Amino acid sequence: MIEKAAHGALVETDNLQALLSGFERGDKGSLARLITLVENRAPGINHALEKIYSLTGRARVLGITGATGAGKSTLVNRLIAGYRAANRTVAVLAVDPSSPFSGGAVLGDRIRMTEHYRDPGVYIRSLSSRGSHGGVSRAARDIVKLLDGFGFDVVIVETVGVGQTELSVMDLAQTTVVVTVPEGGDSVQVLKAGLNEIADIFVVNKADREGAHRLKAELELGAGLGPSDGWQPPVILTKGLTGEGIDELMSALGQHAAYLKAHRDESRDGDRLQHEFTEIVTEEVGERLSRFLAQGEGSKIAAEVRCGKLNPYRAARELIEDRAMMARMLSAADRF
Amino acid sequence: MIEKAAHGALVETDNLQALLSGFERGDKGSLARLITLVENRAPGINHALEKIYSLTGRARVLGITGATGAGKSTLVNRLIAGYRAANRTVAVLAVDPSSPFSGGAVLGDRIRMTEHYRDPGVYIRSLSSRGSHGGVSRAARDIVKLLDGFGFDVVIVETVGVGQTELSVMDLAQTTVVVTVPEGGDSVQVLKAGLNEIADIFVVNKADREGAHRLKAELELGAGLGPSDGWQPPVILTKGLTGEGIDELMSALGQHAAYLKAHRDESRDGDRLQHEFTEIVTEEVGERLSRFLAQGEGSKIAAEVRCGKLNPYRAARELIEDRAMMARMLSAADRF
Repeated sequence: MIEKAAHGALVETDNLQALLSGFERGDKGSLARLITLVENRAPGINHALEKIYSLTGRARVLGITGATGAGKSTLVNRLIAGYRAANRTVAVLAVDPSSPFSGGAVLGDRIRMTEHYRDPGVYIRSLSSRGSHGGVSRAARDIVKLLDGFGFDVVIVETVGVGQTELSVMDLAQTTVVVTVPEGGDSVQVLKAGLNEIADIFVVNKADREGAHRLKAELELGAGLGPSDGWQPPVILTKGLTGEGIDELMSALGQHAAYLKAHRDESRDGDRLQHEFTEIVTEEVGERLSRFLAQGEGSKIAAEVRCGKLNPYRAARELIEDRAMMARMLSAADRF
Repeated sequence: MIEKAAHGALVETDNLQALLSGFERGDKGSLARLITLVENRAPGINHALEKIYSLTGRARVLGITGATGAGKSTLVNRLIAGYRAANRTVAVLAVDPSSPFSGGAVLGDRIRMTEHYRDPGVYIRSLSSRGSHGGVSRAARDIVKLLDGFGFDVVIVETVGVGQTELSVMDLAQTTVVVTVPEGGDSVQVLKAGLNEIADIFVVNKADREGAHRLKAELELGAGLGPSDGWQPPVILTKGLTGEGIDELMSALGQHAAYLKAHRDESRDGDRLQHEFTEIVTEEVGERLSRFLAQGEGSKIAAEVRCGKLNPYRAARELIEDRAMMARMLSAADRF
């Protein structure tokens, strides 16, 4: 709570207005600063997201996931080159939820992407979780909104590893590419991690290694077990290092975009939007609650909670059912 | 939402009262059923947790984490035997957030624990995430409360893998044991995953393998980098298969319990309790919101959200700032 108050000092109203103006003018410094404010959950940031929301919805959002060492970053580099050759701007968000304490960015990936680092049509950013459990999915969601609203044609969300957070991050993508490599038991790993359920396209990278064609066959078999009337995830052999197979991957990405356009699943889209709305409401309630607990009437409740004498389930219910107190709690808006 | 309504049918008031009576009588069938209701987030379950809360706070809660294949289950088996020999009852919750779609339990682990399966002083349960993103930490929290309240002397929370969800599950433990094995780069993996920051005790399992002593030295070096006036995580060599080192592990667990008792960190405990309270409030608000959106006035808002025409950030703020509507939304309590 104190942390948030401290961050609050960073977001004076004028400052945020200036950042939003810069953002709308296409100033990357303002974009970078807004992303940092999202990472820190600075008070006022939801106002900023509210303001830029009308600019969103135009980017093509791709998700790239798969186990560490599968060569995802090299592939992303190739995709950047492919989209740039087609004159489209690209933003990359590299998400590493497995390093919650380091606070460091996915530096290796950033270095490997330096080939495009000076290209003004490319923007690369890393996101690690910095200890705020469960916060990565949310930060990724809001950062994708910023990148989309800023005007990038393509937003690539790349994850390191295949845990639950990575899977939830992939919900943000219109098309999810699962990258595998021909090594012992990899198709089993894919199944075990539930990746077969989210893959729109499979890539077998490092395809010159032994077992690549067997893995391809296994993935095709697995993909064929899904409903036969929908999209059939293709399995594409690539060699990230030489660029072989990238044209086919680009083409498959194009086909999936066309498929989505032709077969819009309104029910699924609706579920996603409703889930997002529910998340935003509860997050905002949580932040107002934190501010409420930090002072005055709320700090007395906090003191009782913190000494462990209060039954938290009962206290929560009683707070929610006390309309007057809830009204006071919910009016603990951040200053903007 | 519809799913929840369907589950609702399972928790008639009388039924839940009967389960709570059974729970208080020590009936394991009632315990198992309540755990299932927690997993399904059945409406009314927070009332049940509120009622059993006064019974909690007595169990010793241990966390066991580390990469797949480190031999955690074998160690847990040994710990069960150790605590049973000391006449203490033990519950194990095996958490596998990496299989969100399978719906299956960590069957292998359960089979390996069958040695204790018929012992009435031992209770073993698995938890996988079943597609509800972010829900595993919460379910684990509430299940630990149930196991604690039921009266188990020791509750062991074991995770498979080392992702962000696993780390957040370890927040539930008073003492966290990080299990490693002497294989290439394992101390680097430990650092990379942030495990050094949560470990109260390190175990180097499969200690007859090459590199065990080097890994021990590396972990001790890493542990020594922390603040020198606090608890120094010991590094214990074990062989799960033969049981060597288990006595030392039991002894280290005892020492850490004594340390915690002597050095209670009220500020950290307070933070944890306040975080828990905030979570319970926002989760309950989220559930009431879902019920509100499912019918009447709320369903009109939901329809607008779902068609994508509404700015979700603005809609969330407007809902929260409309006191009368919030009052109607928050009164969408589950029937109990």
